[in-house]
Amino acid sequence: MKAEIISIGTELLLGRIVNTNAAYLARKLAGLGIDLYHQTTVGDNPQRLSGALRLALGRSDAVILTGGLGPTVDDITAATVSRLTGNGKTRIVPNRVGTAPGLVIDYRGRAIICLPGPPRELCPMFEGYIEPILKKRYKSGWIFRTRTIKTVGLPEARVDQMMKDLLKLPPPTTVGIYAKLREVHLVIMAKAKTERLASRAIASLEKKIRARLKNYIFGYDDETLESAVGARLIAGKKTIAVAESCTGGLISSRLTDVSGSSKYFIRGAVPYSNDVKVKYVGVSEDSLKKYGAVSRQVAAELARGIRSIMDVDIGLGVTGIAGPTGGTNKKPVGLVWVAIVTDKKRIAREFRFKGTRRDIKWQASQAALDMIRSNI
Amino acid sequence: MKAEIISIGTELLLGRIVNTNAAYLARKLAGLGIDLYHQTTVGDNPQRLSGALRLALGRSDAVILTGGLGPTVDDITAATVSRLTGNGKTRIVPNRVGTAPGLVIDYRGRAIICLPGPPRELCPMFEGYIEPILKKRYKSGWIFRTRTIKTVGLPEARVDQMMKDLLKLPPPTTVGIYAKLREVHLVIMAKAKTERLASRAIASLEKKIRARLKNYIFGYDDETLESAVGARLIAGKKTIAVAESCTGGLISSRLTDVSGSSKYFIRGAVPYSNDVKVKYVGVSEDSLKKYGAVSRQVAAELARGIRSIMDVDIGLGVTGIAGPTGGTNKKPVGLVWVAIVTDKKRIAREFRFKGTRRDIKWQASQAALDMIRSNI
Repeated sequence: MKAEIISIGTELLLGRIVNTNAAYLARKLAGLGIDLYHQTTVGDNPQRLSGALRLALGRSDAVILTGGLGPTVDDITAATVSRLTGNGKTRIVPNRVGTAPGLVIDYRGRAIICLPGPPRELCPMFEGYIEPILKKRYKSGWIFRTRTIKTVGLPEARVDQMMKDLLKLPPPTTVGIYAKLREVHLVIMAKAKTERLASRAIASLEKKIRARLKNYIFGYDDETLESAVGARLIAGKKTIAVAESCTGGLISSRLTDVSGSSKYFIRGAVPYSNDVKVKYVGVSEDSLKKYGAVSRQVAAELARGIRSIMDVDIGLGVTGIAGPTGGTNKKPVGLVWVAIVTDKKRIAREFRFKGTRRDIKWQASQAALDMIRSNI
Repeated sequence: MKAEIISIGTELLLGRIVNTNAAYLARKLAGLGIDLYHQTTVGDNPQRLSGALRLALGRSDAVILTGGLGPTVDDITAATVSRLTGNGKTRIVPNRVGTAPGLVIDYRGRAIICLPGPPRELCPMFEGYIEPILKKRYKSGWIFRTRTIKTVGLPEARVDQMMKDLLKLPPPTTVGIYAKLREVHLVIMAKAKTERLASRAIASLEKKIRARLKNYIFGYDDETLESAVGARLIAGKKTIAVAESCTGGLISSRLTDVSGSSKYFIRGAVPYSNDVKVKYVGVSEDSLKKYGAVSRQVAAELARGIRSIMDVDIGLGVTGIAGPTGGTNKKPVGLVWVAIVTDKKRIAREFRFKGTRRDIKWQASQAALDMIRSNI
């Protein structure tokens, strides 16, 4: 069973948006054990869409088209497909989020599946309607399973070195490595004839990887660093309050991205000015003068202050220079202090991050969440 | 002059990575005035790569291949290309970041350009070597300019209706429409023989669009809603403090994503529990009891409270139900109240958003930033 993806949209060919739909659908098809050998992007142009569709129908059993389905004049998919297929058997797929419905067309033993472009419409439609159709229609005999193991705090090159042998494994069970800012993910991919064989292949590799990466692992599959932190806080029945300066609310926002976070997240404070740090979080004017706002002392006082004011188990304090301005030789852009105070621990760590203002904020939030995770 | 992109890598077809290279190259080609009509992805498979390359050479003047260039067995690009082209004139392009060099091959009047897959290798190589070659080789005589006009608060269908005639304009000057959560962007694309003609074409359309969309426009090109709000706060010499409950720090984080935001952003508060709302932001227990935490009254008291505590020009208060749990019939998930208090205004607005927890938080932050923007 071979499928193929055609993405439609001049905005893709102008590079105005990144094609995340193709990656999403590819992942989904892989999970169904359906082979995907080609993925094509064309603009909002009926001739070129026709050409791509004809080519795809000549080599694939199912063609998934995304985009060009909305209410606007650019939206050419439905007209182009129906011109090519004539009055084929068409099923309409409801769109519970947006306006444009999806289409599934039977055409000479092939399936043409048209989905809307916006991911928030495409994903529920695929999962609610298309996935069950594909499952029923194409029993490949193979199943494909993946397991993602997520680490934080190790550089990619280091993980790569530690996993060198595993990253070279030939199919049917392979390991891939993917890095983001301060996170490295290892993905085990297994293709097998039965669920049991796939699970066994994955479990044996997972065991090896866990033995090597130990505590650097924060979660699996869909878990995020913030959801992993949340789960630990709930398990330990701990509460937390955050006083974050340079991250500007990002850590609080990530912690509260997790459903149920009101159980442990009590208060976030973004004391951006020095004045506010002193008046409302209990940072001492002395420390500000002596060490500066970006210092071990002020980070520690932010953590201690917010913890004692709120009477929570964990206080977190973050201060740094997100840039691009405000850096000095001694305190360059990217310098961040993170402090955590619990009933048993008082830890402050210095970090030096690189990148844009948003990159630095993000890395600081990663480091801070990781410090919470490893100290409760 | 037509170019085409072929991305190579099984990891792309498994959806393990998102194809940001294609978007990057697309943007670059657009800037050079080079047409891009097709973009294709194939796996690490010589037959399918050959097929894609042959097809591309039949319809495009330049074919850019990315990926499959490294030292591993997966890396099939160089061998496949040379098998197809024989001993064509090949130029080697140095890689200052990684190991695999790039290749530029002259083949029957076409250019085949092979670049490494990792973005941090591809981008400097493209900008340092390929872009100058393309510029010299393809003096199209055309220049290509875009202008993006960004609106907030209007639904896409409404903007589409208001722009119906403009969205149908034929080349060389066209208008495209792109929607995100609560933002709609219009992109004017002009192809012209001189910079002056392009500017003129853009200016005349921009004038029309501005006359229709007026105050819904918050910015242009690379501006973000938060940077537009920041610019207004600086221009008006205003300061702001935020008390946000359901958005959990997201509004503060977005406001502080803007370099220089410490000039106007004084303090963010995330009073997540009712207790904290009362004790530290001055919400009355009466209001909480009588109207509930998600109500016009509490939003207004959050805004008023944080404004008077901090003695700032603008106080913003946000309260709502981000979900997925916690909704009731009367107060469903997605209900959000946003209040703003200035020396002249006291406004509270109710919103009902749809989507995931993160979608709802994002839309609430959009609505809140828009309310700041339109009330200073």
